[in-house]
Parts: sequence; structure tokens; C-alpha cells
Amino acid sequence: MNKENVGLSAGSGGKEMSELISSFGFTNRGNWENCDNDSATLNMEDEKKLVFTSDSFVVDPLFFPGGNIGHLAFCGTVNDLSVMGATPLGLSLSLVIEEGFPREDLEKIISSIKKLSEEYGIPIVTGDTKVMPKGKIDKIIINVSGVGVVNDKDVLTKEINVGDKLIISGGIGEHAVSLLSKRFDYTTDVVTDSKPLIRELEAVRDLVKVAKDPTRGGIAAILNELCEKCNMGMLLDEDLIPAKQEVVKVTEMLGINLYELACEGRFVCISSVKNAQNVVDKLKKFNSDAAIIGEITSGNQVIVKTILGKRILPVPTGRLVPRIC
Amino acid sequence: MNKENVGLSAGSGGKEMSELISSFGFTNRGNWENCDNDSATLNMEDEKKLVFTSDSFVVDPLFFPGGNIGHLAFCGTVNDLSVMGATPLGLSLSLVIEEGFPREDLEKIISSIKKLSEEYGIPIVTGDTKVMPKGKIDKIIINVSGVGVVNDKDVLTKEINVGDKLIISGGIGEHAVSLLSKRFDYTTDVVTDSKPLIRELEAVRDLVKVAKDPTRGGIAAILNELCEKCNMGMLLDEDLIPAKQEVVKVTEMLGINLYELACEGRFVCISSVKNAQNVVDKLKKFNSDAAIIGEITSGNQVIVKTILGKRILPVPTGRLVPRIC
Repeated sequence: MNKENVGLSAGSGGKEMSELISSFGFTNRGNWENCDNDSATLNMEDEKKLVFTSDSFVVDPLFFPGGNIGHLAFCGTVNDLSVMGATPLGLSLSLVIEEGFPREDLEKIISSIKKLSEEYGIPIVTGDTKVMPKGKIDKIIINVSGVGVVNDKDVLTKEINVGDKLIISGGIGEHAVSLLSKRFDYTTDVVTDSKPLIRELEAVRDLVKVAKDPTRGGIAAILNELCEKCNMGMLLDEDLIPAKQEVVKVTEMLGINLYELACEGRFVCISSVKNAQNVVDKLKKFNSDAAIIGEITSGNQVIVKTILGKRILPVPTGRLVPRIC
Repeated sequence: MNKENVGLSAGSGGKEMSELISSFGFTNRGNWENCDNDSATLNMEDEKKLVFTSDSFVVDPLFFPGGNIGHLAFCGTVNDLSVMGATPLGLSLSLVIEEGFPREDLEKIISSIKKLSEEYGIPIVTGDTKVMPKGKIDKIIINVSGVGVVNDKDVLTKEINVGDKLIISGGIGEHAVSLLSKRFDYTTDVVTDSKPLIRELEAVRDLVKVAKDPTRGGIAAILNELCEKCNMGMLLDEDLIPAKQEVVKVTEMLGINLYELACEGRFVCISSVKNAQNVVDKLKKFNSDAAIIGEITSGNQVIVKTILGKRILPVPTGRLVPRIC
């Protein structure tokens, strides 16, 4: 990457992105907390916190097996609120559309958002619409920002301890593979995992300490981020990490790291040893692949135990899969 | 405009944009109010309201006399909160950047945002960064969403009456003209009016009933919007509407309607006859061009009194000035 310019890798959810964002130097956060988390929080009265997040979606292609950019945008922002333990209150929807964009496609996208909004009872309450001349933007990009509320005691940023269990709510990499299949025009049965995680998180909120959704950069990115924040390590067992056979095959075919593949409807959470099986049992009602995949260690790295021995799972770098969300 | 496709005019703040947004049919707003206003509001405890808004900025060029896209994005969103009577609490910043975008330009943009954030004490608390491949987006677009809070009694959506005065906080059209000068490469002393309106609005909040900032579509768009909402009319006096001579000359040269030109640091407000002069006096401390420009009538149109007689000021239609904000 040319040091003077912004490279594609700066948008991939890995090391280069962290560096770019750090370079902005937004350090004065007023009374807000969790500004480097999925959503920022602000103390209100009555032991409640306001929760606020924002995401822009630039996914390519716009329509892919099991979803589209609208569905993804709704889920992505709702999940950023939910993994904090929050109840979403309302969303904004800002569209930037290319001149000449087919009205029919726009209707499909809006219709996906409306359907989710009604099903989950989270209204779209404000927004903005811009149109750019033909050729100045690739079709459409969507920003969804969201506000929510959480009781102080429910915020999922609790202290974790050595021995705590690492749990995942379902198989990894399905969103990335569904997109890649469309992009490279191969046939697969894999559809995106994109979905709101509200119900799953409500079911286990009292039992887990921390939750994170592995989007750009996959579990490789978020587990390393967690380790760095908590100053702890993790030991994962490769055999326990759920992934569909087709997903694994695509990663082998394309030579990409399974653990760096984006999910859009999965979360990793950490619970005490005592609660772990209960968490998995509750999550299995939503997805039978939910599983304990490892535990917290006293190290400072993410280590994966494989049949060939242990290896470090590093922070992702490079371009990964561009425009995944 | 081809009925099947989204036209440029759908992003210009006029009639076509309203039609497009209505067609989305987001009618289920939960407990939120003011969803078709500058910011949506939600009742909280203690007679307070949460205020929420979002704007995406696609301005072209990125740098223009007196400002840049970052400055504009901060001000635009803060003003959407302020005109509701709210105190901004925090903002999100979501960037979508073209691969290869000069790091130096990005630093200038971020630096403008940081400067305003510090000066006005409104922190950037969350956000997102995406990068699109070269050619897939024109340089950079920025979404800034914002949350604020307002006491019930301060919400600027109060009932207006026939005879109430219409006041503007300064000269119109300077933002549009500064952009057009850069775009068409002519020389002018006019710089953008882009600025946060918090202080002005705080100064007059107790004296006014309604406030609106005339961005895309200018005062022509927002005055018509207000008339439609309140089921009332307005009578403006052309001679009283402040505009720099250079601004007027540019509109004559380019054959565009002065009243449709975007401002990014002005607001129109409505007060009782009794308070009107007090409002103007307070606003003049910030901008000596603040003035009473007309009054509320029992009609249902915006009428402008000119030396040639009265004429209707219609809702803007067509492309107006694209990518103005």
C-alpha cells in the first residue's frame, strides 16, 4: 500500500483498518464509553445507557444467495446494538443511489428492510436520500445507524477470566461464501447467514460476559481484538469450530483463511465454565451448530489447536474479501 | 425522469425526492415522532426526548471556498438536531473512501471534523470505514448520524398562527454559490455559510416556535414543506430577504432561482409578532443580515411580494444543483 493513499486493505476489517482509524485521533469522547466497541454507550438516568452505532454497506453484488444489501444493512446495525446487550429502539436509513438505478431493485431492497423492521419491531425513523450522477458511484450504498438502550447491569462488557469458555452461535463463513459464489459465478447451496441476532442474544444475555459478531475479518479479527482488549489469550480447538463442508471447500479452493471469512448472523460470546453448556443449549434452539470452541488463557495470543499441533491465529492483514458488507 | 429508474432529481431536495421517499412506505414508526422532520424524536423519562438524525454527504467538489465535505457533514447533522431545539450529545462518522484517495486530503477532512467537534464539545463516538475499489465511487462520501436530547417544552414544533413572523438568520445561497464557483471555475469572494447553528438556536430557542434549515432546495423547499404541514400560507417580501449581491448576480447569470439555493449555516424560524424583533436582535449578534422576511397567512401557498406584484414560490422540481451537500 502506498503510504500516501488509502488502500483497499484499509477497509477490510484487519490491521490496516485499525491503523487508519487510530490515525484519525478521535480521542475526546466526552462522557461516552465503548467508543472502540461495536456501539458506543452513554450513561442516562435510572441506570440505563443509550447505545449508538453506525455502519455503511457497500456490498458487491447487491443481491446474493439468501440476502441483499438492504437485509444486510438492517441486520448489521441491529447486531452491533444487540452484541452490547442493548434493545434496539430505532434505525436511520441513508441511501446514496447512482442515477439510473433500477426502481425495481430499489423496491426489493426497501422491501427487505421493511419486512425485517416489522418482524423485529424496530422502526426506521429518520434518514436521507442522495443521488449521484451515473458512473460516480457503483449502484447504491446504504448507511444504517441505530440507537438502543441497555440497563447498566446488562452491558456485555463484563470482566473475563482464565478458563472462561468461548462459544459460537453457528457455523462460520457462510456470508462470505454466498457472496463469493455470486462474484465468481460458481454454484453452491450456501446462503448468507445474515440475520438479526436479537433473539439469540436476549436468550443468553444473563449468562454471557461479552459478545461480538465476526463480520469483516471473521473470527480471526474479533478474537484478536478481544484478546488485546482484555490482555488475555485464547485457545481454540479447530475440531470444534463449526463450518459447513462447502464453506471449508471454498476456502481451500481459493486459498483463503476460513477464520477470516465474514459472518453476518453469528456471534462469539464468552461465559463462565458453569454457564457454558446452558448457553450452548439455548443457542442450539436457534442453530444446531452452536458450540463451545475454546477457552480463555493467560497468554496474549489466539492459538488454534489442530491435528498438526498448535498455531497462532494472527490479526488479518491485506485485502481479504473486499466489499463483503 | 424514466419512471423505472432513479433520476438525479430524486436527490435534489424537491418534489421528486419527497415522492421517492413516500414510495418507500415506512409508516410504522413505533413510538417515534417527527419522523418526517429534521430529526426524529422519542419520549424518554423525565419529560425529555431523544433526538436522532442521519445525513450522507456526497458534495462535489470535496474542497470549496470556506469549507470541505467534513466540515459540511459535521454542521449538517448538528444543525438537523439543533433546529429541533435539541442539544447534540454525540455523532457517528462513517466514511466510504475510494481506493487510492490521497491520505493528505483525508487528513484535512478529518481535521476539520475534529476541530468542530472540540470547539462545540460534540464528540465523534462511533463510526465505520469502508474502502471501494478505484472507479467504484467518486473519491469519498461521508455519513454523519447524530443523537441529542431535548426537554419536551423546548421542542421546536410548536403551533403557529396567522400573523406570526418569519425570520431568517442570515443571507441565503452562499453555500451553493461557493460550490458553483469551484465547479464552474469562476472567481468570487463568496464562501460557504456552512456552520453549526447551535449557539444561534440556543439564543432564540425560548422565543421561536419552529426552526428549519434550508439546505437542498433552499428556502423554497422548506417554506413549502412548512406550509403543507401547518396547513397555512406565507407571504414573503422579496425586498426583505437578505442575499449578498454576488449571490444574486450568480443566480441571474446561471438562470437559477435564488430561493432554491442551498444554505448550510442558516435557519428560518417562526415567532409571535411580539417576540419577532427580539429574535432578530439576538440573531444579529451572530450575523448582521438576520431579518424578518415575511409572515404566516391563512392561505396554503408561499407567496412572494415583488416590485412587479405577488407571485407563488413553488416547491422546487428538477435537478436544481446536484451534489450540493
